Order: sequence, then structure tokens, then C-alpha cells
Amino acid sequence: MVDFSKLQDSLNIHFKNADLLKQAFIHRSYLNENLDVGLPHNERMEFLGDAVLELVVTEHLYQNYPNSEGDLTNWRAALVNSKNLSQVAERLHFNDFLLLSKGESRDTGKARQYILANTMEAFIGALYLDKGYGEAQSFITTHILEDLPKILEDRSYIDPKSRLQELAQEHVGSTPSYQVLEESGPDHNKRFVVGVFVDKDQLAKGEGTSKQEAEESAASAALETKPW
Amino acid sequence: MVDFSKLQDSLNIHFKNADLLKQAFIHRSYLNENLDVGLPHNERMEFLGDAVLELVVTEHLYQNYPNSEGDLTNWRAALVNSKNLSQVAERLHFNDFLLLSKGESRDTGKARQYILANTMEAFIGALYLDKGYGEAQSFITTHILEDLPKILEDRSYIDPKSRLQELAQEHVGSTPSYQVLEESGPDHNKRFVVGVFVDKDQLAKGEGTSKQEAEESAASAALETKPW
Repeated sequence: MVDFSKLQDSLNIHFKNADLLKQAFIHRSYLNENLDVGLPHNERMEFLGDAVLELVVTEHLYQNYPNSEGDLTNWRAALVNSKNLSQVAERLHFNDFLLLSKGESRDTGKARQYILANTMEAFIGALYLDKGYGEAQSFITTHILEDLPKILEDRSYIDPKSRLQELAQEHVGSTPSYQVLEESGPDHNKRFVVGVFVDKDQLAKGEGTSKQEAEESAASAALETKPW
Repeated sequence: MVDFSKLQDSLNIHFKNADLLKQAFIHRSYLNENLDVGLPHNERMEFLGDAVLELVVTEHLYQNYPNSEGDLTNWRAALVNSKNLSQVAERLHFNDFLLLSKGESRDTGKARQYILANTMEAFIGALYLDKGYGEAQSFITTHILEDLPKILEDRSYIDPKSRLQELAQEHVGSTPSYQVLEESGPDHNKRFVVGVFVDKDQLAKGEGTSKQEAEESAASAALETKPW
């Protein structure tokens, strides 16, 4: 039995309406196996929380940085994308509170990343409904906007392929190239392994269900090994 | 000389900081010809206003309709897309206050539609900065959310091709087909004229810079002639 009082204590946020908090953690799959839960899944709440998050982040960027809306748009995307939100959710131990079907519980890959990110948005929606804009803003400022300085420093708001290209140009005057190393699986379930090369040296490999996804994954892997 | 007091009187909204209001109407092109205006263009303000609009509309839909987030997402898109926002801006006589270069002033087609929609978002941003969320919410409720009942009744939140297909299925049991009637212009500036047909009868024509755009325009034209 999931005990939400632990989560509330660790966040130091106590809900007036505990059902709102619980609903934020209910994945669609959970309802199939738990017909008597008496609450809907979290997707409508996620729709609301997404818009709250967007305004809080947008306002923060607008008020604190004189940059063009093009820059601000890229930085916002890096803060609110599912990768970053799922990392925030993990830091806050949301994994321990997810209400999922048994099948979904076993999947801890990309699918779990989306579920965590969506739950983070739903949680923000619940907080907004229970305590209003100011409390939601304060939560987002503490737990999501704190990542902004590092995102700006690492320039991780640039997609990994562009970022790797920047670095390769700067340090070795070359452009990275990508090559499919393996391709397998039927048409509807392809798997690609792609290598990224600079001057014939393979920096890293990545895999994905499309060439583009595998290339991005290879570029990310190359950035992590920090060749320069 | 544009006199913003007329706009403020007609909207019955009077800004504490008149520069915020003026900035909302400054298109990027205006600054080239008016170096001494002393204010930036409206694009950062539009970035902020877009997020305010999104939250106000999202919250209204969440609180008033029990529908799925998929439905709510479609309805929201129909309210905040550039076509609808430009229509609201026209109703409120924003055309009389736009600060544009002489070149931009002559273009009253698609480019003007985007400028009007962006100015509407910038205006909402300015209102939010000057008077806070409540006043922005009240403006959006009065002038943008008032379109919602009609959008729901006309089902105009469905893209025109899908909507025409629904109606054709329902009334004559056929699926519309599209055929390129004319194609002209160089590669970077193509022009397509497409006809939409049901059972060999041409319902309407549309044009655009891509086949897809011309097909949508043909479907919209067919919906306006209301064949069924």
C-alpha cells in the first residue's frame, strides 16, 4: 500500500485534499486492475499541470534573462522536456509512489521516463488545484528551475547532435559523421545501432527505433565521454 | 500618430505603465524605420503572453468540461491558433494600432494574420505584467473564451479535411478526394490549386504553397458552401 504521507513529509507539502495528490500518481494502466480505486487517472491533471509549469518557467525566464524569445524557447524546452522532468521526479522518489499496472511496473526504460514526466506534470496540476499558483510556482522554482544554471553552462538545451558538432568544430575542426552499424527487426519494430565518427575515429554508439533516434543517442553518448 | 487611449477606452482597460501597452504593438519591422522609439519589439512579450493565454484557457477547460485531455487539447488549439486569435484582434480593432514598417503595412494577407495573432499574445503579456493574472484571465474569458460554444457547436476544432470527410460519410456515404488542378512557380515558390471532389462532383477549389495547404483550403471552402 502506497503511503503518500511519506512523500508529503519529504517534500514538506501537505495537501488539504489528499485525493488530488493520489490522483496525480494514477497511471491509466492502474485502473484496469484496480476497479475500486474511485478516482480517475492523471491525464487531465497532467494537461493542467503542463500549462502551470509552462507559465511559471516562462515568467521566470522572461523576468530574469534579457535574451531573445528564441533563446528562451530553447531553454524552456530543456527544462520541461520529459527527460529533465523524469530526472526531477526520480530525485524526489516519485518512483516509489507510482500507481501502475503490474505490466507497466516491469518496464523501466523509455516508457517509465514518460510516465515519470507525466506524473510530475500531474503533481504540479494537483498542487495548483489544492494550493494555488504561488505554491506551484514555489515548488517549480525549487525543484525544476534549479537545473537552469547547469543547463545553460553545459549548453545542454542544444540538441546533442548540434552540440557535438559545435565541439568537434571547435576542438578538431571536423564535422562528426554517423553510420548505421546494425539494422534489425521487422518494419514496425526496427532497431538501429549507429556509430558517430570524427576523422574515422568512432567516438560512441547509440541505438534507437529510428536512425534519427539512434544518431541522437550516439551523440549523447559521445558528449558524455567528453572527448575534448 | 497612434493614440492608445482610444484602445484603452474601448477595452475599458487602462494601463498603469503605458509603455507596456505600446510595446505589445511594436512589430520587429517597425524598429528599422523608427530608431528613436526607445522600446523593444513585442516578441519577448508574446512569449510570455502565449503562456498566460495557455494556462487561462487550459484551466477554463479543465474546470468546466469533464472530457478527456485529448478533446481538451483539440479545443484549446482551436481557441489559441493564429486564425482565431487574429479574428479576436480584428474584432477589437488591433489593426488600427499596429506599429509596422511601411512594407509590412501593405501586406494584409496571411502575414498580417500572424502579426495580429502575435500582437494579441503580446497584449495579453503586457496586461499580465501591468495588472496580474486575474485581469488577464478576465480579458481572455470575455474576448477569447466566448468563442468556445460556437467552436464546439460547429466542430471547427476538427481540421477541415477531417470535418469534410465526416460530413461526406454521414450525408452521402462517400469519401472526398483531392486532385491537383494547377501547379506553377519555381521550386522555392510553388503555387498549387487543388479541387476537392465527392463522387466526381467538384465541391470547391483551394490554393496554397504546398499540396497539403491547398487541400486544406479546398476543404475549408467546401465546408463554407455547406453542400449538406
